[in-house]
Amino acid sequence: MRSVIPDYLTEALDDVRPDTSGERAGYIPELATADPERLGAVFATLEGAVYGAGDIDTEFTIQSISKPFTYALALADRGFAPVLAKVGVEPSGEAFNEISLEPSTGRPLNPMINAGAITTHSLAGVEGLAPDQRVERVVDGLSAFAGRRLSIDEAVCASEMEHAHRNLAIAYMLRSHGILTEDPRAVVDGYVRQCSVLVTARDLAMMAVTLANRGVNPLSGVQVVPAPVVRQVLSVMATCGMYDAAGDWATQVGIPAKSGVAGGLIGALPGQIGIATFSPRLDPHGNSVRGVSLFERFSSDMGLHVMEVPPSAPSVVRSNHALGDGAHAVRVIQLQGGIRFAGAERIVREVLDSAPSEQTVVLDLTMVYSVDDVARRMLLEVARRLTLDGQDVFLVDPESIVPDPDPGDGGRVTVVKDVQTVLDGVGAADARAQRA
Amino acid sequence: MRSVIPDYLTEALDDVRPDTSGERAGYIPELATADPERLGAVFATLEGAVYGAGDIDTEFTIQSISKPFTYALALADRGFAPVLAKVGVEPSGEAFNEISLEPSTGRPLNPMINAGAITTHSLAGVEGLAPDQRVERVVDGLSAFAGRRLSIDEAVCASEMEHAHRNLAIAYMLRSHGILTEDPRAVVDGYVRQCSVLVTARDLAMMAVTLANRGVNPLSGVQVVPAPVVRQVLSVMATCGMYDAAGDWATQVGIPAKSGVAGGLIGALPGQIGIATFSPRLDPHGNSVRGVSLFERFSSDMGLHVMEVPPSAPSVVRSNHALGDGAHAVRVIQLQGGIRFAGAERIVREVLDSAPSEQTVVLDLTMVYSVDDVARRMLLEVARRLTLDGQDVFLVDPESIVPDPDPGDGGRVTVVKDVQTVLDGVGAADARAQRA
Amino acid sequence: MRSVIPDYLTEALDDVRPDTSGERAGYIPELATADPERLGAVFATLEGAVYGAGDIDTEFTIQSISKPFTYALALADRGFAPVLAKVGVEPSGEAFNEISLEPSTGRPLNPMINAGAITTHSLAGVEGLAPDQRVERVVDGLSAFAGRRLSIDEAVCASEMEHAHRNLAIAYMLRSHGILTEDPRAVVDGYVRQCSVLVTARDLAMMAVTLANRGVNPLSGVQVVPAPVVRQVLSVMATCGMYDAAGDWATQVGIPAKSGVAGGLIGALPGQIGIATFSPRLDPHGNSVRGVSLFERFSSDMGLHVMEVPPSAPSVVRSNHALGDGAHAVRVIQLQGGIRFAGAERIVREVLDSAPSEQTVVLDLTMVYSVDDVARRMLLEVARRLTLDGQDVFLVDPESIVPDPDPGDGGRVTVVKDVQTVLDGVGAADARAQRA
Amino acid sequence: MRSVIPDYLTEALDDVRPDTSGERAGYIPELATADPERLGAVFATLEGAVYGAGDIDTEFTIQSISKPFTYALALADRGFAPVLAKVGVEPSGEAFNEISLEPSTGRPLNPMINAGAITTHSLAGVEGLAPDQRVERVVDGLSAFAGRRLSIDEAVCASEMEHAHRNLAIAYMLRSHGILTEDPRAVVDGYVRQCSVLVTARDLAMMAVTLANRGVNPLSGVQVVPAPVVRQVLSVMATCGMYDAAGDWATQVGIPAKSGVAGGLIGALPGQIGIATFSPRLDPHGNSVRGVSLFERFSSDMGLHVMEVPPSAPSVVRSNHALGDGAHAVRVIQLQGGIRFAGAERIVREVLDSAPSEQTVVLDLTMVYSVDDVARRMLLEVARRLTLDGQDVFLVDPESIVPDPDPGDGGRVTVVKDVQTVLDGVGAADARAQRA
Repeated sequence: MRSVIPDYLTEALDDVRPDTSGERAGYIPELATADPERLGAVFATLEGAVYGAGDIDTEFTIQSISKPFTYALALADRGFAPVLAKVGVEPSGEAFNEISLEPSTGRPLNPMINAGAITTHSLAGVEGLAPDQRVERVVDGLSAFAGRRLSIDEAVCASEMEHAHRNLAIAYMLRSHGILTEDPRAVVDGYVRQCSVLVTARDLAMMAVTLANRGVNPLSGVQVVPAPVVRQVLSVMATCGMYDAAGDWATQVGIPAKSGVAGGLIGALPGQIGIATFSPRLDPHGNSVRGVSLFERFSSDMGLHVMEVPPSAPSVVRSNHALGDGAHAVRVIQLQGGIRFAGAERIVREVLDSAPSEQTVVLDLTMVYSVDDVARRMLLEVARRLTLDGQDVFLVDPESIVPDPDPGDGGRVTVVKDVQTVLDGVGAADARAQRA
Repeated sequence: MRSVIPDYLTEALDDVRPDTSGERAGYIPELATADPERLGAVFATLEGAVYGAGDIDTEFTIQSISKPFTYALALADRGFAPVLAKVGVEPSGEAFNEISLEPSTGRPLNPMINAGAITTHSLAGVEGLAPDQRVERVVDGLSAFAGRRLSIDEAVCASEMEHAHRNLAIAYMLRSHGILTEDPRAVVDGYVRQCSVLVTARDLAMMAVTLANRGVNPLSGVQVVPAPVVRQVLSVMATCGMYDAAGDWATQVGIPAKSGVAGGLIGALPGQIGIATFSPRLDPHGNSVRGVSLFERFSSDMGLHVMEVPPSAPSVVRSNHALGDGAHAVRVIQLQGGIRFAGAERIVREVLDSAPSEQTVVLDLTMVYSVDDVARRMLLEVARRLTLDGQDVFLVDPESIVPDPDPGDGGRVTVVKDVQTVLDGVGAADARAQRA
Repeated sequence: MRSVIPDYLTEALDDVRPDTSGERAGYIPELATADPERLGAVFATLEGAVYGAGDIDTEFTIQSISKPFTYALALADRGFAPVLAKVGVEPSGEAFNEISLEPSTGRPLNPMINAGAITTHSLAGVEGLAPDQRVERVVDGLSAFAGRRLSIDEAVCASEMEHAHRNLAIAYMLRSHGILTEDPRAVVDGYVRQCSVLVTARDLAMMAVTLANRGVNPLSGVQVVPAPVVRQVLSVMATCGMYDAAGDWATQVGIPAKSGVAGGLIGALPGQIGIATFSPRLDPHGNSVRGVSLFERFSSDMGLHVMEVPPSAPSVVRSNHALGDGAHAVRVIQLQGGIRFAGAERIVREVLDSAPSEQTVVLDLTMVYSVDDVARRMLLEVARRLTLDGQDVFLVDPESIVPDPDPGDGGRVTVVKDVQTVLDGVGAADARAQRA
Repeated sequence: MRSVIPDYLTEALDDVRPDTSGERAGYIPELATADPERLGAVFATLEGAVYGAGDIDTEFTIQSISKPFTYALALADRGFAPVLAKVGVEPSGEAFNEISLEPSTGRPLNPMINAGAITTHSLAGVEGLAPDQRVERVVDGLSAFAGRRLSIDEAVCASEMEHAHRNLAIAYMLRSHGILTEDPRAVVDGYVRQCSVLVTARDLAMMAVTLANRGVNPLSGVQVVPAPVVRQVLSVMATCGMYDAAGDWATQVGIPAKSGVAGGLIGALPGQIGIATFSPRLDPHGNSVRGVSLFERFSSDMGLHVMEVPPSAPSVVRSNHALGDGAHAVRVIQLQGGIRFAGAERIVREVLDSAPSEQTVVLDLTMVYSVDDVARRMLLEVARRLTLDGQDVFLVDPESIVPDPDPGDGGRVTVVKDVQTVLDGVGAADARAQRA
């Protein structure tokens, strides 16, 4: 039974395995000798379930997949303003190793190209860290995303440093613009160490699902970075993650993603899933050939696309009925589900359309599982206006799903555990709360 | 009471009204004389509710906001392949009137820049239409999105044609590459007519919400274009809709959007809302200054961002319990909510973890409101495997939410109206279905 | 005997004839059917001698070779400022049909790319000419350069107009920037007519030598455009004439040149020679394959390169000697050759070094064939200073090679026909002018 | 008297002195503190005369003016092919510190931008030199151009190395492309030392005139680099020397030139003059403001422009007459001046037109001061053909100006000292050579 999803993954791997096109990254000798046949795929859910097939526990270096996570760490450690001042968020439409700096300022266009990622590395951790402390901060952070202690592949690291001419070129250029303020060589060294962190496809899927889960690792329960940081990171992955084929990916796959030259590829669909694949042969963009095929298939098979409109949820207004009569009459509006702006709007409309003439109006939240901030404010505003019209408003909220239920400015709301309490209070002894 | 949302909108308009920066579009004399103080904003919901404040019924020309809709019409009328062969989906990182053609093919980078939009216009309607028939097709299509009959502002149209030198330049360039195959002047004339369609902010909000609602206009109920077309259009709006500030918009606002030089601005958040604003003064990118401010506010106030992870819905597994015992024992797994991949995965896990030893297993879908295709296949696969293990599987599906419930390959499922029917069937007379 | 140079040319043609690489211009049907084997080369000297070999009297269309000549006409007809305001002089490093406009102003980078050439065409003739009058002016001008009446190939012209999409695109773009102020279609029509003028290799060599001869056609003696215009045209040809291989040409060939897609190629080495070749197959830059080979050979064989330093001329000071003695002593400085700045400097030095103590100083210009303006001023300044020192200065200038010989400011010079006149005047009866 | 040219220079300096616009180079602290009022100009002639005014003996660092000279050294030391393989000759149309590499190969576009100059530095001297040996080679070479021992300003050098981030960036980029093969830091260090060589305006004028004089320093008489190298260097200076204003300079000034950020500016007009100016304030292109003004004035005042056509020299055929009669008749064609292709062509024509019927034909070179290679071959061919027609040909060449006078293939020429020798030989005792 457990094998339903693994079976699907196994079948998907079998379909792409015959494709041996593409080449391993050639510019780092250590990567050029990787086993090109390795192939694996992992799904990780928001609840922490992990499904995999193929080489999911083989270690390889994270490479560019470290970029969005280090960007998240920098945003969390320094705040948005200092990071945005040094690294933009615009798609470059260029290859990963293009310099792509803003002409006048020298600001890298985005954190997914090397120039931006090197700058981002220098912004991880609090200000004033020594280079090795910064690397420690980054490895700690990546480990927190993965939910296990990660380490650095020293051989790949050394091999990369010997061929880091282009990254050194970029770093000196950044230094000449004052975007980097430290010794460029030390920053590149740290960046190469960041890229040499060893991960498995399983790790990457956990890292991806942590992004999909608002920054909380589903297994460890740790909030690695705050939710607004995650939103920023996912947005940048969506537009800049796949380099010069950003538009193809955005339309055909539609999952915020990031690839690495060692063959890893991750995708994070907010609120839904984290995905990782591993296959070392790369297309000319530097993305894993079989990884891209797998993602295209996953998106198509499962409707995993940020622009995929989910089927409509049922109305948040489950029922709307009067109990009792005369002075004892009570209007009960029973709500359900998760309420965001659209749901709150529906409730406003319901209250308006039903024009409750009863003295007592009850909003029953028993079957509601969430109310976001804007919906909370709208519900309280409804309550306030009813109060101002002279009506008594009760909120049935047994799980205190509406925090701080104060409508303000002349509004008043009484929070109770169940509808019966209201009925009892108004002396509508014979009225009985009923389900619609 | 109706005024809760209008009040919010009114307040938002009041906040941005003092900002008189920016300039009306100067290159079309007719636009340069528009009243620059006009200001309006409209929300339209998937259920067809429309809220507005300010100048929401003032007519102005749609201009570039016609681009995503005409792109939708072309995709619907011709299919994806012929359109993608002539217009790309890559962000250009350039202003709307840059030529931005692929060097070798002359293919415009995307349908949101003028080169792409002119090409897109030429692809609207079936092949072989005369220029005026094509304009008719476009006006019909835009009208269907808006849900009312739209017309062309002949004065603006004539004024634009006199200053259409740049668009003629682009069209002749496209003609020289064979991207256009007709008389460039006729195509530009049709394109200018498309841009001169008169709309109100109310119309634009309805058009936007039609995109947010999978292509169905919520008021007319008409499926204007198929859902896959809408997904493509929203994806392209997300990456290319705001021209050279695509990344800023994607991170800060996060709503697929499109602006027009007459001052309109629309946003469509799939499954949630359609928004339109109107204010004629433009920033240097050509986007409405106050419109951009309003969208930033709406996104921030209401969490309207495609990368905003909604609060977790409760588990789709509402309860899991046994009824009766011995040979009559029945395992009832009660499900709830909307089930997509993540939910189905949870069900697979539940069945696996509970390892039901009962002869009869019931999946109760009474409280489920939707099952998408991948979830349906996973549920049926669970059923199939249980069958193969020798168990009897029942689907309680009173609203036939799972179409064609055939697990295939040796699997068998009996669909019933309620749990009691199963209990009756197995002779578990004294067992009673209960809520967990 | 006449055949020494033709023999050289014939041998050169024989050497390049086997090279059948390259393709005829394909975008104009009429050109695509030209006989690809045609091959000819012509030298024209400043004295009007013309040497040719091969197909030197076959007519073909002038195409882009008309560009430098029309630029010359525009500069002559309108003056430098209005032309430079609309067309730059910077190399574009791009192909001939790239648009290459300055971003902000829309000014074409130079008159050799199509955008610049179309603009230049619009500036030929006085302001306000009707399109057909302007074409007439251009054909008249080209004819004056060639020294015979040229005509337009109406078939090629019509064929080009049908495929002029790209040029129309460019013209509309120029119109949108206000660089063109007329109907773009009419300007392109005129430009295409300009390009369709029929010439032979012989004509082209005469046109080239007219540039090499300061604007005077050596056979007709007509000053077609002023010398400063020619200097401007040659400078622009040197840096922009060969499109995107400007640097290769400038170093390896070093002859200001221009090619046309019908297979023509001209070179003009100022003060030395005009060259034309004809062979229709083009390399990817759009330059005649065999034409380029021929020019490389001509430059190499004959030292025809603008940076080739000619062997030193002998000193302009032919002799410096005293005649007679006492109060009758005369210092005679005999000059020779052409005197420009460097020669005048030598004379200043000579006068200084010899520190003539004689009362009478004679500058003998009998063997001088030219004195340019700066040299004239320097010679007169020498005379003025000698006068101020109290000496009597005579200029022996039988051919009045120094116009207006007034040293000004206290200087005085007596011009005489020969040295003997001076000797007779000072009463040095027995002194005799002698060669040194 | 000596002061005629210095007076001109002084007047020119006085005219530009009030212009205090521009800024000293700010990016090197040591340069930012230079005295901005320094101003000097120097002319150096092919004969070694040097004229100056203002600060002509103030030392400053050579900076980018070292580029053309080091390019010359590299071409001389390694040959053309290895240098051209690593550095192109195309104008970049960009600022001096743009990277401007060819996209695929990483080859710098030309040796005048920093990327090209750094590469060029690495190519100076024979292969395999240690970095300090290479610096020694460069300083030796620059010293040879200047004609005196130059030294390095260690303070500026140290100051530049501290701000060499951009050059290090460029060098690492070149290293990543394999254009540099050594440690980028060592190459940049050497390049910075090259740029820190101290020169005066007087030195620069001597260096420039060495280029103008085919590579021979007029004072020392040393051939610093071969003539073909000089031609290449001058060609590249003409198209790439003034960076992004190449076209303006080429048309308005027309002197191959190079500027340095310390305020130096040189120009070399082949066969005519070397010029240097010094004034530290720079325009936005990085060229000395007052230096540019001075060059514009020099070019305009003195007709110093490579495309300036010099006034025609008189015909190379000084006379053409018969002496004696009957069998003793001798045809004497007296030539004069410097003979290059155009002159030789004239001689061919003369011989043809006069159709000498005399048995003996004499070409009298007594008054000829040079015959270049092509002219030599043409003269000998004339002689050969006359021989084949049965005539006896004599060359009067007292100074052996025609080396190796063998017409080959059946031709025969007798070289004699004077015409009388011929006359004596043919027994035309009473005939006397006369001037025409």
